[in-house]
Amino acid sequence: MIREVTATIISIGDELLIGQTINTNAAWLGERLGLVGIRPRRVLTISDEKEEILDALASAKTDVVLITGGLGPTKDDITKHTLCTFFDTHLVRHPDIEAQIVAFFERRGRDPLEANRAQADLPANCTVIPNDRGTASGMLFEREGRVHVSMPGVPGEMKKMMVAHVLPILQQRFKPPTILHRTILTTGMGESHLAQRIEQWEDSLVPENIKLAYLPSPGLVKLRLSTYADRDAEEAIARVDRKVIELRALIPELIFGEGKDRLPQVIGRLLKERGETLSLAESCTGGYVSHLITSVPGSSAYYTGGVVSYANAVKMEELGIPSDMLELNGAVSQPVVEKMATGVRSALRTDWSIALSGVAGPDGGTPDKPVGTVWIAVAGPDGVKSIKGDFPGTRGLVIERSALAALDQLRQRLR
Amino acid sequence: MIREVTATIISIGDELLIGQTINTNAAWLGERLGLVGIRPRRVLTISDEKEEILDALASAKTDVVLITGGLGPTKDDITKHTLCTFFDTHLVRHPDIEAQIVAFFERRGRDPLEANRAQADLPANCTVIPNDRGTASGMLFEREGRVHVSMPGVPGEMKKMMVAHVLPILQQRFKPPTILHRTILTTGMGESHLAQRIEQWEDSLVPENIKLAYLPSPGLVKLRLSTYADRDAEEAIARVDRKVIELRALIPELIFGEGKDRLPQVIGRLLKERGETLSLAESCTGGYVSHLITSVPGSSAYYTGGVVSYANAVKMEELGIPSDMLELNGAVSQPVVEKMATGVRSALRTDWSIALSGVAGPDGGTPDKPVGTVWIAVAGPDGVKSIKGDFPGTRGLVIERSALAALDQLRQRLR
Repeated sequence: MIREVTATIISIGDELLIGQTINTNAAWLGERLGLVGIRPRRVLTISDEKEEILDALASAKTDVVLITGGLGPTKDDITKHTLCTFFDTHLVRHPDIEAQIVAFFERRGRDPLEANRAQADLPANCTVIPNDRGTASGMLFEREGRVHVSMPGVPGEMKKMMVAHVLPILQQRFKPPTILHRTILTTGMGESHLAQRIEQWEDSLVPENIKLAYLPSPGLVKLRLSTYADRDAEEAIARVDRKVIELRALIPELIFGEGKDRLPQVIGRLLKERGETLSLAESCTGGYVSHLITSVPGSSAYYTGGVVSYANAVKMEELGIPSDMLELNGAVSQPVVEKMATGVRSALRTDWSIALSGVAGPDGGTPDKPVGTVWIAVAGPDGVKSIKGDFPGTRGLVIERSALAALDQLRQRLR
Repeated sequence: MIREVTATIISIGDELLIGQTINTNAAWLGERLGLVGIRPRRVLTISDEKEEILDALASAKTDVVLITGGLGPTKDDITKHTLCTFFDTHLVRHPDIEAQIVAFFERRGRDPLEANRAQADLPANCTVIPNDRGTASGMLFEREGRVHVSMPGVPGEMKKMMVAHVLPILQQRFKPPTILHRTILTTGMGESHLAQRIEQWEDSLVPENIKLAYLPSPGLVKLRLSTYADRDAEEAIARVDRKVIELRALIPELIFGEGKDRLPQVIGRLLKERGETLSLAESCTGGYVSHLITSVPGSSAYYTGGVVSYANAVKMEELGIPSDMLELNGAVSQPVVEKMATGVRSALRTDWSIALSGVAGPDGGTPDKPVGTVWIAVAGPDGVKSIKGDFPGTRGLVIERSALAALDQLRQRLR
């Protein structure tokens, strides 16, 4: 049995508690710890008050305790004094660090204030961790087998300190087990139906010592497989790989990528490989699909442009939809969406096109075509195909989910 | 002395600890609690494990304890069972909630699984909080004067539940001191320059017992004024109002709204009042401005549509840009952007049009036109006007900031 190395992250700052700043430091630290096999067990966000900090320090029973924030030169920062109380020590001025602070200010053509020089006052019994990007030093304390590290809250300073100094010390000190993560990205099926479909496969992960997590977001479900990879990293990679191959065989149409892949990127890669181009005709999504596609750097290599045909007049004039077709079927219909797709494809002379027409709501729904009804067509060299989607929810969700479904329709055609 | 009402936020989920998801729920909750006068004292992020949850619940000594996450239908969710242990109770099936779950699925033309129906199993001694957007109910427990509320982790479901049900209950139960907030929305000037420009006005808030917070986001700075309004609400409203009138006189061109106003809504309101219409021609923003405008319900009343002219061929054919104009000036230029605006305005026969052409990056910048160079034109009944913006940053930031600047250009013309 491998002994797990665990960590607590203590984030200090009122701005985090009142929601003025989102705690991205904790997410970044959690990811970095996980990657070296240290398991973050708890994140504690507290205010910059002595009692709160002492209480948080006393409650942290993990191998590693990382503290960020509360080390600036202003008077509301009391972390350093509280660390002295907790670790039964006192502050001493480090002349070498004071010289670095003075030099830091001189490089910027400014004079350090006494408050800045006082950042060289550090607890007598700590190991000082250099700050390569600022004037607040890090502090490392060992007690009862635990390692406590206090770092500044400025993300750039903290990250540099962590990567350059703290992580190497922790790896050397604890030799944590390596955890292997692999994330498979799916779309087109909700969490509970997906869980049912892959239930047997999921059960088969237990004897393989692989843990599965479902991570749903609108239009997507991510499946994260995790396992220890200590004794034999190659074996662990192969063990997870076998299970991923099984999963790919089980739900081939639902998987669009891995890890940090995103649908617009995946489509861009496929189009580039094929040397083909894309255009769009959007109604209910109002430009959102175009926005997703053009958020990818270099998308101008395969995306020529699109038409947002919000008014019927634009559908007729820019996309060549006959007015009697609109009258007969309504704008949210199979013939209209297919004609939108073929119309924009020929107008912009692209290999592929996607068209969407639907009811985004909150108004405009009918018993026949309730809010969330969206027709999606993809036209390509082999003709036009369309599906009718049902994406109920708020206006924002209807737009988000139908956009992802439309991109996925194109992906299926390009596979 | 007003007794402070305090809160703990417990966020459950491994995905938060390992940094796969950033804990935006906690920031949102912290802000919302603060707005009704409840002080968030601590955020605890923990994994989806019984011992961790029990430990977190036992350590929370505040008036309010809000728990999010761990209520989905899949097997890795154990929060509900742990709540039963902590509050000495057991699960009972609620037939009315089961019926709602079945109806929820039927509306989407799907059959609920037993895992979905089991979401109607809820602790016998809790008050059930309705989930208007999903199938996981909220649960409220009272013990030793504390109110514990467990909510789903899906942001849209949690937020709706909080605003519609939980906050009113907490306000009723604890009667926290009333804090009056008023938020003035500005655009067109960065935080530090704005702070300098309104420095004297800001100093004059101190004797009025009004606190000012700068809330910057890309392209916007929100100014939030806060004061206690317990003794005399009318007086507090009038006191803040006087200061807002002074601020409006000081920076009239920078203020585009208040509170929940958004630029696309403000523009929609102005266009509706005038009975006028809008079209768009976007290049570097790739459909994002169109997406912002169509995110507003009812935008089809004034927005007819637009063209995303990513390739030069589309600029020529759909917008009538002469090829020699493109060759002579380049796509990112004043003549081209003005012709894009007048071209789409006449093609879609609208009263107003906005056009954008710029370098979104990360590639494509030149010494002459670096990344972030964006030309914006607005054409209307009184002609076309354009500005050259400089919005450096990542691709996403260039798109966001130039879109907001373009909307603000139209707003200034419509005022």
